[in-house]
Amino acid sequence: MKAVEKILENNKSGKFVCVGLDSDLKKLPEILKNDKDAVFKFNSEIIEATKDYAAAYKINFAFYEQNGSKGLSELEKTVELIPGNILSIADAKRGDIGNTSEMYARSVFEHFRFDAVTLNPYMGKDSLQPFLDYSDKLNFVLVLTSNPGANDFEKLILNDGKFVYQRILKSVNQWNENHNCGIVFGATKLEELKSNIKDFGELTVLLPGVGAQGGSMPDVKKVFKDNKRENFIVNVSRSIIYKSSDSDFAEAARSEIISLHQINN
Amino acid sequence: MKAVEKILENNKSGKFVCVGLDSDLKKLPEILKNDKDAVFKFNSEIIEATKDYAAAYKINFAFYEQNGSKGLSELEKTVELIPGNILSIADAKRGDIGNTSEMYARSVFEHFRFDAVTLNPYMGKDSLQPFLDYSDKLNFVLVLTSNPGANDFEKLILNDGKFVYQRILKSVNQWNENHNCGIVFGATKLEELKSNIKDFGELTVLLPGVGAQGGSMPDVKKVFKDNKRENFIVNVSRSIIYKSSDSDFAEAARSEIISLHQINN
Repeated sequence: MKAVEKILENNKSGKFVCVGLDSDLKKLPEILKNDKDAVFKFNSEIIEATKDYAAAYKINFAFYEQNGSKGLSELEKTVELIPGNILSIADAKRGDIGNTSEMYARSVFEHFRFDAVTLNPYMGKDSLQPFLDYSDKLNFVLVLTSNPGANDFEKLILNDGKFVYQRILKSVNQWNENHNCGIVFGATKLEELKSNIKDFGELTVLLPGVGAQGGSMPDVKKVFKDNKRENFIVNVSRSIIYKSSDSDFAEAARSEIISLHQINN
Repeated sequence: MKAVEKILENNKSGKFVCVGLDSDLKKLPEILKNDKDAVFKFNSEIIEATKDYAAAYKINFAFYEQNGSKGLSELEKTVELIPGNILSIADAKRGDIGNTSEMYARSVFEHFRFDAVTLNPYMGKDSLQPFLDYSDKLNFVLVLTSNPGANDFEKLILNDGKFVYQRILKSVNQWNENHNCGIVFGATKLEELKSNIKDFGELTVLLPGVGAQGGSMPDVKKVFKDNKRENFIVNVSRSIIYKSSDSDFAEAARSEIISLHQINN
């Protein structure tokens, strides 16, 4: 199944929540902390508890890389736990010169076997081409991010009056020959979402920023509904996986994803 | 010793070559290919052969991550081989929301113990702040990259007539409160180098693109000399480490770095 079809199928079943596995040893429930496979066991229980409602799982590489090779070994095992009908996203913000991006694409899609990746467009099209060449995968290119620093460069105004991020949005639409492109658009940027959604074309949208960062799930869902548009997922990390720090963490995560899932449905 | 001082010391000794360890199993000399620690042994011999002339070693994460946890374990061992007086650079193009960048900074500077890192500025200042907080380290922010795609967004023209990359250069100068910032500026962009070098301030400059990508070491050195400026390193990867694919690969790498080192000296 092509990656983009997984999203469409899940959207049809009313599933729009992407669970972000930002699993940090320091934040895990006490009962797991002394386990030598703590992160893997935590991920395993979170996935089991949330998989009936999850449209995607997003694995944030930073949280694994901080532990070097041991962390990547936990990442390798975690990817294997994600059910085949749910999109797996490598949140790694890649983008480099051609021969290097080729290695990164091989890493993400062939070694780790993710369905999708997040990409940073700063270095231009050739820096992303090796990813775009994987026609069955899905490439979420950063357009407007959820953090305050999005104002620094993404919102610089060009000589044609457009924002930098709008030019990138236009380019991603042009790069979508293999129908395998998506964009990252911050759920915290509601006004920009409303004013740009008409230009999203057929791109799949990943919206981070709901929960700890202040974005609102009902607000985001409403914009897409008002525009009669599906083909999107909303990432929620900390407020699902760390909902409880006690032994009931998995049940608490399940309750949280259910309540997010039910919004506007 | 602060990271920036390592560069200044090496520059004083006439050393400007950064050796890029883009070590790809498929390109290693035949005699190493069947060794289970091939990449590590290759790096070990290359470092031993080039360390008398190297101002820095740059490790490209992509080439290691393609082999997952095993690759990162080779990376961990390789960093330890780099002599303490020579700058070690994690070429990883990082940049993400605050709590994620904090993990990446911890990974690069504390787990792997690199002196320096390459950063992607697209997401703005807060996405790089956790790196900038390490005052003894060195942060090379992408300004104008060496690849053709640098024209796509880095060279978009803003409403004040400046290029996007020039605005980023200005910002990096402003972020340099801890005197731990540098920039990446492509050695293939000679005209832009000549016209922007006056705005580099006290930033350390990493110039990739000499060799396989077409940049020229004498041309780059001349621009810095004409501007009476040191505090730079020129990265050369493939044309040093793969100079010979026979058993004399280490000697060939040594001869190559010596000839690059002697240019204009």
